Amino acid sequence: MVFKKITLIGRSNESFDAAVDDAIDRAEETLAGVHWVEVDELGVEIASVDTREYQAEVTVAFELQQGE
Amino acid sequence: MVFKKITLIGRSNESFDAAVDDAIDRAEETLAGVHWVEVDELGVEIASVDTREYQAEVTVAFELQQGE
Amino acid sequence: MVFKKITLIGRSNESFDAAVDDAIDRAEETLAGVHWVEVDELGVEIASVDTREYQAEVTVAFELQQGE
Amino acid sequence: MVFKKITLIGRSNESFDAAVDDAIDRAEETLAGVHWVEVDELGVEIASVDTREYQAEVTVAFELQQGE
Amino acid sequence: MVFKKITLIGRSNESFDAAVDDAIDRAEETLAGVHWVEVDELGVEIASVDTREYQAEVTVAFELQQGE
Amino acid sequence: MVFKKITLIGRSNESFDAAVDDAIDRAEETLAGVHWVEVDELGVEIASVDTREYQAEVTVAFELQQGE
Amino acid sequence: MVFKKITLIGRSNESFDAAVDDAIDRAEETLAGVHWVEVDELGVEIASVDTREYQAEVTVAFELQQGE
Amino acid sequence: MVFKKITLIGRSNESFDAAVDDAIDRAEETLAGVHWVEVDELGVEIASVDTREYQAEVTVAFELQQGE
Amino acid sequence: MVFKKITLIGRSNESFDAAVDDAIDRAEETLAGVHWVEVDELGVEIASVDTREYQAEVTVAFELQQGE
Amino acid sequence: MVFKKITLIGRSNESFDAAVDDAIDRAEETLAGVHWVEVDELGVEIASVDTREYQAEVTVAFELQQGE
Amino acid sequence: MVFKKITLIGRSNESFDAAVDDAIDRAEETLAGVHWVEVDELGVEIASVDTREYQAEVTVAFELQQGE
Amino acid sequence: MVFKKITLIGRSNESFDAAVDDAIDRAEETLAGVHWVEVDELGVEIASVDTREYQAEVTVAFELQQGE
Repeated sequence: MVFKKITLIGRSNESFDAAVDDAIDRAEETLAGVHWVEVDELGVEIASVDTREYQAEVTVAFELQQGE
Repeated sequence: MVFKKITLIGRSNESFDAAVDDAIDRAEETLAGVHWVEVDELGVEIASVDTREYQAEVTVAFELQQGE
Repeated sequence: MVFKKITLIGRSNESFDAAVDDAIDRAEETLAGVHWVEVDELGVEIASVDTREYQAEVTVAFELQQGE
Repeated sequence: MVFKKITLIGRSNESFDAAVDDAIDRAEETLAGVHWVEVDELGVEIASVDTREYQAEVTVAFELQQGE
Repeated sequence: MVFKKITLIGRSNESFDAAVDDAIDRAEETLAGVHWVEVDELGVEIASVDTREYQAEVTVAFELQQGE
Repeated sequence: MVFKKITLIGRSNESFDAAVDDAIDRAEETLAGVHWVEVDELGVEIASVDTREYQAEVTVAFELQQGE
Repeated sequence: MVFKKITLIGRSNESFDAAVDDAIDRAEETLAGVHWVEVDELGVEIASVDTREYQAEVTVAFELQQGE
Repeated sequence: MVFKKITLIGRSNESFDAAVDDAIDRAEETLAGVHWVEVDELGVEIASVDTREYQAEVTVAFELQQGE
Repeated sequence: MVFKKITLIGRSNESFDAAVDDAIDRAEETLAGVHWVEVDELGVEIASVDTREYQAEVTVAFELQQGE
Repeated sequence: MVFKKITLIGRSNESFDAAVDDAIDRAEETLAGVHWVEVDELGVEIASVDTREYQAEVTVAFELQQGE
Repeated sequence: MVFKKITLIGRSNESFDAAVDDAIDRAEETLAGVHWVEVDELGVEIASVDTREYQAEVTVAFELQQGE
Repeated sequence: MVFKKITLIGRSNESFDAAVDDAIDRAEETLAGVHWVEVDELGVEIASVDTREYQAEVTVAFELQQGE
């Protein structure tokens, strides 16, 4: 069993916690076997959105399945 | 148009999210054209305050105005 | 007076803020003179737990007492 | 909407700018919604090529589409 | 020709060398044109396994094929 | 004589060199005594602009004048 | 349950793997609940020893017990 | 109350300690509420000066006053 | 023989050298077999003290004794 | 065959590409077997020169020859 | 007595340990007074060689002799 | 004119300043055109010497002469 890591950026108008959850939710939609997540960076987008958008860049580690 | 970045430390007795917002609020009081914010460091001050103080050091990016 | 720093990992099923508080609470149980805390890393454990576990690795700075 | 980041290395016999463009061009051939690119490293390959080859390692951020 | 880099974690009950080879072996099962590998981190899992498991996080660089 | 450092982001539709020059030009409009510049990061904005925009984040070092 | 991390340097005249194991063995002599280990640095001492001494600096993560 | 951080380079023909003090002295001439200083880099200028010049790049943290 | 590393912050009203010595002196009061010290960070506390306090964060490496 | 790495700083009044080439040209004057180059830092010298001088610090990797 | 540090890349078809030893062996052929070695990076070359080549970039510290 | 950088470790029983000067003095014995020095690391050797030995690892930048 080998793990693979990918990098996602989740977003939320509520909080950094929700931005991290947003990225994990998205990962679990298309990936089986997500094991853990590391938070790489937190930021806030202001100028191009109506209300402050909390963003979290995360690294998602999951088990590589057959043929992936 | 050129961006400038400055570093602020916001504080809150509630949460890290509120500490980040504190720094953004302060930046927007005196700066026009704040575009985005990067979170550099999170910490908690304990000994010199009554209740735990959540602190967030952030980098604020804004458009330089005429003459600044 | 000299400070010492140690590294702890707190955990919570609720939020990163609570995971940081978890580590500080634990530090204050056995250490006198905790002065401040720095957040080193945030992560989420997923595969080995029932619900997402928010984790915060923190560095705790405290005053060294006599004989420690 | 969630962003994903991948890492590519573009190459050119002309310049670093062209090496970065090479990586972006390749990304846009197979990915919709490329938003921005960060330059991670610049280098020059000399011994295994006829003329100096400028190389740019870049991180490409794009919007994850349905089912990706 | 453009290179792409991905991040894998190989594992072995024998040694770090074998953990790195484990990741390379897995990469070569599904990827053509693997050129080189960089070792990012070494670690040992102890509590959740019967015997110490040596782990190696590696970055794998390979030539992007048509349509990838 | 004391130096101060500030961080600017210059932009260009032509090249990274021009993006760096853009930031230096802007610094010299309002600052006397600019001594040197360090390039911190290079990037390309794609989605929000018509043609690729090369960006250079630079640190500008200049002599602090009386009263600054 | 809170984790604590400490830093040890193991040594061996045979290999880096054995130097890492040396540090883990020592940790398990006095600590219950060692969960995982991260390798921070590898080095070789030459001048002050008879034969090359392989050294591994590792971070050991373990569960804090009652009263620790 | 929000803190701001700026970066200065102090200089001395005597010592690094004096170079750090030089930067702090300069900061306190124009800023109220300087709280602490972090030393980022130490260096020595040789070729362009008569005697070795010790330099210290420091980050100065101070309380933002009304209207700043 | 295995080494352990701990992190201390020494302080002095005189100089950074004295702040480093302060941390080493304190380490040698309670630890046998201190081998070497690495300086991690230098800083100056200003607002909460009467005269500038030079601080040095150091990592102290010592031989682990029986039963430690 | 063993590689050695050295660090050079090339300079140009034209561009960063030319500054990198300047360092490679110089390396190839006195070294056989230059294999590749990594760009470490880019900067611009302004105050001590007539026109902006683009500088590139690079690491040059070459095969060690007999007796070197 | 002053130390100097140089950077070498050793190689082996067997293991990372052997690649490190390869670099140390080469250093000791031409340098007197090699004191210690730090491992900077580990990698594997695959595409340009027949069998996987383990590579270790190391920093070698040695005493500067008269006239060096 | 191209600069080269080398890494030296100076030592002193008095202070870090003297350890840096020790390295610069040694560099100037055999190198013409030393321009500047960057301090990379400070440390103290304790166990293998009679009195504490302050050590400074520095990078020395100098102009490459003809034929070097």
